[in-house]
Amino acid sequence: MRFHTRKWVKPEDLNANGTLFGGKLLAWIDEEAALYSIVQLESKKVVTKYMSEINFMSTAVKGDIVEIGIEVIKFGTTSISLNCEVRNKMNHESIVTVDNIIMVNLDDKGNPKPHGKTKVEFVKDRLAKQEKE
Amino acid sequence: MRFHTRKWVKPEDLNANGTLFGGKLLAWIDEEAALYSIVQLESKKVVTKYMSEINFMSTAVKGDIVEIGIEVIKFGTTSISLNCEVRNKMNHESIVTVDNIIMVNLDDKGNPKPHGKTKVEFVKDRLAKQEKE
Amino acid sequence: MRFHTRKWVKPEDLNANGTLFGGKLLAWIDEEAALYSIVQLESKKVVTKYMSEINFMSTAVKGDIVEIGIEVIKFGTTSISLNCEVRNKMNHESIVTVDNIIMVNLDDKGNPKPHGKTKVEFVKDRLAKQEKE
Amino acid sequence: MRFHTRKWVKPEDLNANGTLFGGKLLAWIDEEAALYSIVQLESKKVVTKYMSEINFMSTAVKGDIVEIGIEVIKFGTTSISLNCEVRNKMNHESIVTVDNIIMVNLDDKGNPKPHGKTKVEFVKDRLAKQEKE
Amino acid sequence: MRFHTRKWVKPEDLNANGTLFGGKLLAWIDEEAALYSIVQLESKKVVTKYMSEINFMSTAVKGDIVEIGIEVIKFGTTSISLNCEVRNKMNHESIVTVDNIIMVNLDDKGNPKPHGKTKVEFVKDRLAKQEKE
Amino acid sequence: MRFHTRKWVKPEDLNANGTLFGGKLLAWIDEEAALYSIVQLESKKVVTKYMSEINFMSTAVKGDIVEIGIEVIKFGTTSISLNCEVRNKMNHESIVTVDNIIMVNLDDKGNPKPHGKTKVEFVKDRLAKQEKE
Repeated sequence: MRFHTRKWVKPEDLNANGTLFGGKLLAWIDEEAALYSIVQLESKKVVTKYMSEINFMSTAVKGDIVEIGIEVIKFGTTSISLNCEVRNKMNHESIVTVDNIIMVNLDDKGNPKPHGKTKVEFVKDRLAKQEKE
Repeated sequence: MRFHTRKWVKPEDLNANGTLFGGKLLAWIDEEAALYSIVQLESKKVVTKYMSEINFMSTAVKGDIVEIGIEVIKFGTTSISLNCEVRNKMNHESIVTVDNIIMVNLDDKGNPKPHGKTKVEFVKDRLAKQEKE
Repeated sequence: MRFHTRKWVKPEDLNANGTLFGGKLLAWIDEEAALYSIVQLESKKVVTKYMSEINFMSTAVKGDIVEIGIEVIKFGTTSISLNCEVRNKMNHESIVTVDNIIMVNLDDKGNPKPHGKTKVEFVKDRLAKQEKE
Repeated sequence: MRFHTRKWVKPEDLNANGTLFGGKLLAWIDEEAALYSIVQLESKKVVTKYMSEINFMSTAVKGDIVEIGIEVIKFGTTSISLNCEVRNKMNHESIVTVDNIIMVNLDDKGNPKPHGKTKVEFVKDRLAKQEKE
Repeated sequence: MRFHTRKWVKPEDLNANGTLFGGKLLAWIDEEAALYSIVQLESKKVVTKYMSEINFMSTAVKGDIVEIGIEVIKFGTTSISLNCEVRNKMNHESIVTVDNIIMVNLDDKGNPKPHGKTKVEFVKDRLAKQEKE
Repeated sequence: MRFHTRKWVKPEDLNANGTLFGGKLLAWIDEEAALYSIVQLESKKVVTKYMSEINFMSTAVKGDIVEIGIEVIKFGTTSISLNCEVRNKMNHESIVTVDNIIMVNLDDKGNPKPHGKTKVEFVKDRLAKQEKE
């Protein structure tokens, strides 16, 4: 799994107990799943359809750095299935895992639309290919 | 199920497609689960331990009003299990459902702690009882 | 008075003294008045016209749960007058009261527009009626 | 009246109708009243006790610049009374006025505490005086 | 240099060390530069093109009041160059300085557009002039 | 240069012209510089001391995905110097560059403190080493 996006836990991210607010964590995961799908599907209109069960294994406190990892499980016809882990950057302790997040590609009217993708692509390869052509 | 908290969908709550950002919705659910548990367990130190699968059934747009419903499934020894639905206030269309959210009561050191509760209570009954005593 | 919306006071809601920021509280009241009016008037274009004097009776601290109550005072031709109280959910202590908030219904050009409502309605009754028809 | 603080109305400040969210405006007023009092009373522990009626005279839209004016009405023993106007910076049209905002100076336990001030002071005069001494 | 906009440092503005988050400070500076330029150039479409080096000289903590000063260095044909200082309101200690911020006036297509201004103007003079005409 | 953190440009990130608010961009850069330094220096108390000139080369709009790259220029005794670029994830167009950001390591009293690091390290190597020992 590749971990890209990182967050610095600041006072605005805490719940009233002084630990990382679970809702903020879920918002970070949802944003990461969305932007990962937008890059892979080369489509700006992608929505969250489903998340499998979410296990909160540990928490984070002010000043911690967390990183969010995403991995593709499956390319469907109109969807993409992702696996996500958020962990503490400094000790790699797992904070939360979500085994399956299904994102759906939509057309302008909001109906599912085939995306034509079948495997993970890297932007740099796409750009190199464009240059050659 | 009782629906209490309401939200007015404002520009700051939208994703880049102009619909309600899923991450914001999850943050609202998590906050509602936390505060509901704090009230029921009469304990300020309550954390989210688990969420069962989440189905995004429809979305909301700018100007919509959504309401969040919570129902207790089970009182455990140190935990409480909740069922949650978010729906559109005006037409009662379901936006998202989470069948099981497990919140855990913690002691000062962050370990699970029995809460001693076995059924739903209303604050007004608690206050009436206090007054009599 | 019915109390619906609840808020969990988090670090992001505090002023520099560590108590609930008054401005945040006023924003919560204004949002609740707006969404309550939208539901009652069945109109999405409703604006705050006036608030009567505001008394800050007590405050709240991190971890407190507050609830916001709204009551209709009067249905005008183009307006609705509301009474609002914010109180601590756990002990029902009053935090702030606003006796009269006037919300106005607007047409597309931003001019006051009659809303045709004369009494409080419940969404479930509206939906039941629609179903029968 | 002196107008100091200015705000640029951005998408995050709008309500669902695309005009400046009243709650945001009230939060801006409350913050300005607080910081003005802190400067005048040379005390960091100042809270909002009361606001007189609030008239929303016009609104603002995305891209507008608004400025917030504050004027002292009266120095009480433990309080200060302020008058506030928010207006559009470009045409000086009044957006909202609050005739009387009462801020109270508190001691460490949260009780009202005499502040010893009787007239408006400028920070530059205070600093010049310190330098001489 | 004239200092107008003031900010009250609240928990939401802090980094994980409990001091004012540098990123928040930079956002405040950028907003002030933008709104100052909009007022001077009488144009709503103004963007930040360049900032010269930024020196963080001291910091601020929760409860501090900071003020932001702006001064025009030069009116270009399509641009305006500003000098900015943020300082602590109570003791005038400098927090950050930026010697040169270049803002550019744009047309509807996003291309630089002459603004026709050559010196600092005050809104009250503009309004007085309009009234006479 | 390695690009890690990614952001999805949402309505809350826009200025009044509908493009990415420069202040938000600067806040993202500052956060990334801080968290990168915390990881490299293995110290939680790191502050921004200096940023060299900032060039805004292009902008981003709602729905764009941007990524933030950081590279170490130099390890000082108490500081670390970084180079930063923010670019559009989909076409690698540069949005903003900052050639030199100096972050300083502090002790508990806020004074510069030697960090003992001289080259870039990877957390996985640190953890592998710990395991062996």
